[in-house]
Amino acid sequence: MIERVDEIAAALGRGPEPSEEGRDRAARVAWSCLIEPGDRIAGALVRARGAAEAWEIAAREPRPAELGALAGVDPSEARAALERWRPRRSGGAIDDAVRRARRNDVTVVTPHDALWPTALDDLGDHAPLCLWARGDVSRLGIPSPSVAVVGARAATSYGEHVAAELAAGLAHVGIAVVSGAAYGIDGAAHRASLAAGGTTFAFLAGGCDRSYPSGHADLLDRIAAAGVVVSEVPCGAAPTKWRFLQRNRLIAAVSGATVVVEAGLRSGSLNTAGHAAALGRPIGAVPGPVTSAASAGTHRLLREFDAVCVTNVAEVRELVGDGSDAPRLAPDGASSDRTRVLDALSERADRSVDRIAAQSGMSVPDVEAVLGGLLLEGRVEPTGEGWRRRLA
Amino acid sequence: MIERVDEIAAALGRGPEPSEEGRDRAARVAWSCLIEPGDRIAGALVRARGAAEAWEIAAREPRPAELGALAGVDPSEARAALERWRPRRSGGAIDDAVRRARRNDVTVVTPHDALWPTALDDLGDHAPLCLWARGDVSRLGIPSPSVAVVGARAATSYGEHVAAELAAGLAHVGIAVVSGAAYGIDGAAHRASLAAGGTTFAFLAGGCDRSYPSGHADLLDRIAAAGVVVSEVPCGAAPTKWRFLQRNRLIAAVSGATVVVEAGLRSGSLNTAGHAAALGRPIGAVPGPVTSAASAGTHRLLREFDAVCVTNVAEVRELVGDGSDAPRLAPDGASSDRTRVLDALSERADRSVDRIAAQSGMSVPDVEAVLGGLLLEGRVEPTGEGWRRRLA
Repeated sequence: MIERVDEIAAALGRGPEPSEEGRDRAARVAWSCLIEPGDRIAGALVRARGAAEAWEIAAREPRPAELGALAGVDPSEARAALERWRPRRSGGAIDDAVRRARRNDVTVVTPHDALWPTALDDLGDHAPLCLWARGDVSRLGIPSPSVAVVGARAATSYGEHVAAELAAGLAHVGIAVVSGAAYGIDGAAHRASLAAGGTTFAFLAGGCDRSYPSGHADLLDRIAAAGVVVSEVPCGAAPTKWRFLQRNRLIAAVSGATVVVEAGLRSGSLNTAGHAAALGRPIGAVPGPVTSAASAGTHRLLREFDAVCVTNVAEVRELVGDGSDAPRLAPDGASSDRTRVLDALSERADRSVDRIAAQSGMSVPDVEAVLGGLLLEGRVEPTGEGWRRRLA
Repeated sequence: MIERVDEIAAALGRGPEPSEEGRDRAARVAWSCLIEPGDRIAGALVRARGAAEAWEIAAREPRPAELGALAGVDPSEARAALERWRPRRSGGAIDDAVRRARRNDVTVVTPHDALWPTALDDLGDHAPLCLWARGDVSRLGIPSPSVAVVGARAATSYGEHVAAELAAGLAHVGIAVVSGAAYGIDGAAHRASLAAGGTTFAFLAGGCDRSYPSGHADLLDRIAAAGVVVSEVPCGAAPTKWRFLQRNRLIAAVSGATVVVEAGLRSGSLNTAGHAAALGRPIGAVPGPVTSAASAGTHRLLREFDAVCVTNVAEVRELVGDGSDAPRLAPDGASSDRTRVLDALSERADRSVDRIAAQSGMSVPDVEAVLGGLLLEGRVEPTGEGWRRRLA
């Protein structure tokens, strides 16, 4: 399977003498068929030498010390990488993936493309080398913020309701909703974004030609029609547990913030939140009843991960710096004299200033000053015998 | 009304020649009849000169400059204090309060008493000068932590359920529950503490001979039978809005932590939480559905006051440093190789090490090492043809 980049580029339809960019694209496709998501040594080698040269280096099976020097990593790490790449050298994985991609209208997107989501570069050596995408890939590059709305498969109707409210609200203000196309919260978020005419991105753990979960095949087709279905593993790849965990890092990285709507204590969405925290992206957690196991994970995020409690779209927008701040609580001491004077007044009986002063424990001049302010506000009225509180 | 301390002491039954302590106690009673709760100038004067001398000073109506110098406050503040004390000089308020207290078995507790809750001293010049208490006042001085469980009058059945669960759980581990005897959350907390045989303290805004709210007269009697009903205002005093706000500072100060169970955005329990924050006491907030207005205030505490999300008794105990820490989330990366190998195995078909390595994207030696560990754990079994995952 370790083929020359030119051959791969030819297979990708880039002609017999591909451009520099075509060769890089071909090499990234090849790499994504060789490695598991998040392979740090591959990432480091590609960053150091470029994808095409990195591929030719790997193809000639260098000694660990040489690979280590070229990639800027420790020789023992380089040795481990060479050993884990070796078992995948046989077989026509690249050809197979490319054929499947062509059959399913799946496009390969690389950092050379203007529509590459540059937020992924924050992953450094763990960044994906390319994305396999199905749908309106031009939307991937939109510069406006996107928000991950994720959560448990075992969601409650409360959780699905809140996910839908948030996703619809985000769609209305032009914020793309990122999620993982799972049952439960993810599906509710995608669906509500679509229904509100928004853009939504589904990141899959397996190849994006495979509809997973199968019950969401129609939903994934609808997402591809109005947004994008994305994966970093090649077409045909199975959605393994490892790839789910790594897929979560893409959701966290591509989004300006990650909001977990419902999560059990072992929900994978806590892993997404962990990636967001590692990347310094804000985490929002939607609270729920403490009696609901489906909210135990979001409460743990509030307790232990410094997540922000979010209860509506405005608060989610704040996470990504979109929209104005919500009004703050008024400081309670500011109007204390006012409160004391109003306490001492009646709506039915006249009260003299002396009596108000005695009852409120304030001085006569202070009472008079406060009464003046309340008069301007229409809260009190002077009577022949003193003062009265006006009916609200 | 400004009488000599000896006369007041005599009225309090301390005899014609009261002790130093008896004169102090008498002066504190007198002061609590003159001022509104939280009067900083009175507090500063008492702290500087002692209650009895402070009272004699106030009685001779000093010039503002003299009072300012004696209390260590600004002359303009001293002038304002003298003016707000003046309207209350007439009338037999002290006699009346003392008579009412005697009639209702209400005891005066001062910092001279061993059972004075010293946590109140953290309020500095805003500390109450004495407490009027009905019930088993010996419990006031117990050194174990107490927790305020407060919340909205307009509580939901969810909120009352959670308040009761928390209060009962605290009672079971010997933690006193402090609250404000209001309808809703407060009442549920007091009742559950009583039912679990715990100690509970009700802090009232009015005199503790007045049952407020009247619908809780029976509950207040039961609290007095097993715990204590407390107020800083004298018997007979009305529960004004100002006194509610000031009462809240006592609840916050006397408690090791304040837990708000449910609160609308304008609930008085947010004021209690604000006092707790000002005193550096931890605030716990119980989350609830974002669709419930009765939880909007607790969610705001989580967002804006850095409150700790609490969902059970163990988490409330953590707030006051009682009990062990809850287990932390396991770091997700630790078992990644294990996950990848388990992904590559089947329960029904044998898989060779080479195949596992290819499928997991790991080296053969790494796969062998992980398989060894999984074998010890009983998660995998070797077969003639390779390895199988064991049925869980």
